[in-house]
Amino acid sequence: MVERSFPVPIDQRYFEDYVVGTTYEFDDTVTVREKDIVAFAEEFDPQSFHVDPDSAVHGQFGGLIASGWHTTAVMMRLLARHYLSSVASLASPGVDELRWVAPVRPGDALRLRATVVESRRSRTKPDRGIVRTAIELLNQRDEVVLRLTAMNLLAARSVLPEGTDGSPGPSA
Amino acid sequence: MVERSFPVPIDQRYFEDYVVGTTYEFDDTVTVREKDIVAFAEEFDPQSFHVDPDSAVHGQFGGLIASGWHTTAVMMRLLARHYLSSVASLASPGVDELRWVAPVRPGDALRLRATVVESRRSRTKPDRGIVRTAIELLNQRDEVVLRLTAMNLLAARSVLPEGTDGSPGPSA
Repeated sequence: MVERSFPVPIDQRYFEDYVVGTTYEFDDTVTVREKDIVAFAEEFDPQSFHVDPDSAVHGQFGGLIASGWHTTAVMMRLLARHYLSSVASLASPGVDELRWVAPVRPGDALRLRATVVESRRSRTKPDRGIVRTAIELLNQRDEVVLRLTAMNLLAARSVLPEGTDGSPGPSA
Repeated sequence: MVERSFPVPIDQRYFEDYVVGTTYEFDDTVTVREKDIVAFAEEFDPQSFHVDPDSAVHGQFGGLIASGWHTTAVMMRLLARHYLSSVASLASPGVDELRWVAPVRPGDALRLRATVVESRRSRTKPDRGIVRTAIELLNQRDEVVLRLTAMNLLAARSVLPEGTDGSPGPSA
C-alpha cells in the first residue's frame, strides 16, 4: 500500500506514527539546476564531472552530474519537509547501504519514496524509539537515483507502549 | 603503520596505488563555522538544532550541531583534496555503515583518516578496480565524529595486473 501523504501532520508526528510496512511517495520535487550542482561541488567535491560542464561532456557520463553528497542533501531536504517529524526527531545514528544508483543531471526533478522497515522502542529510554526507513530518491522518469536505509531516533508520544499505559487493552 | 602523506601525487595516482592495510592521516583540517552550519542546514536540513542557535541551547545537544550531511560533505572535501585521485576517480557506487558518532559543533576543526581495506580489479573491465576505504573524520580533540566505508571505482595505470604485463616477474 502506497500512501501519498502522512496521516499525521509533520508537527504532531511521533515515534508511534511510523508504522512498519507503510510506504509513502510524495509528489513534491526538488529540481537540481546546473548552477546548484557546480556550487555544491566547488565547495565539497570538486571533481571535474561535478564542476566543469565542458570537460564533463567528454567524460564517461557525457555531461555534468551532481556529487553524490549533493544528492543525499537533496534527499534530506525532502525527508525534513515531508517525512521526518519536526517536533520528535532527536538524532540519527547513521545510514546503511547507501547506493548512488544512477547519475543526477542538471534539470532532474527528484522526489522521495520512504518505507518504514523497522520500529523499535528503546528499552533503556522508553520515551523514544528508533525507526528504520528504506529511502529511494526518484527522478522525473521514475528511475531510482539514490537508495539508502536511514535510522532516526524519535521521541514517543507516550512513555509507555500502547496497551501498557493503564488504559484497558484488548485482554483487559 | 600510519602514513602522513600519500607516496604518489594526487594527479598521478591510480588504482594500483591504493595498497590494502595502509592508513593515511592527513594534518589538514576544515573548520566548520556556525554560519556554515546554518547555511547548509537552511538549504538541506532545517531542523532546529541545525539552524536555530537560540533554541538549540535548550535542546538535547546544548547548542547548534552540524547536519550529518554537512559533515559527510566536509569529509568529501578532504577526501578529494588528499586521498582520492584527481585523474583516475571514475565513480562511487556508494558507502556502507555510515555513522555519525559524535556531534560536530561550531568551531570544530575536522581532519581525515583513511584506511584501504579492499582493492579488487574488475574482471569484466580490467582497466579499472574498486577500492574500499574505511574513513574516519576526527575533531580537534581526536574524537571520531563520522565513520563510514566508501567504495570508489578507479582507473588502473596498467590494464594488466603487475607481473602479468609481459615484464619479467619474480619467477621469470
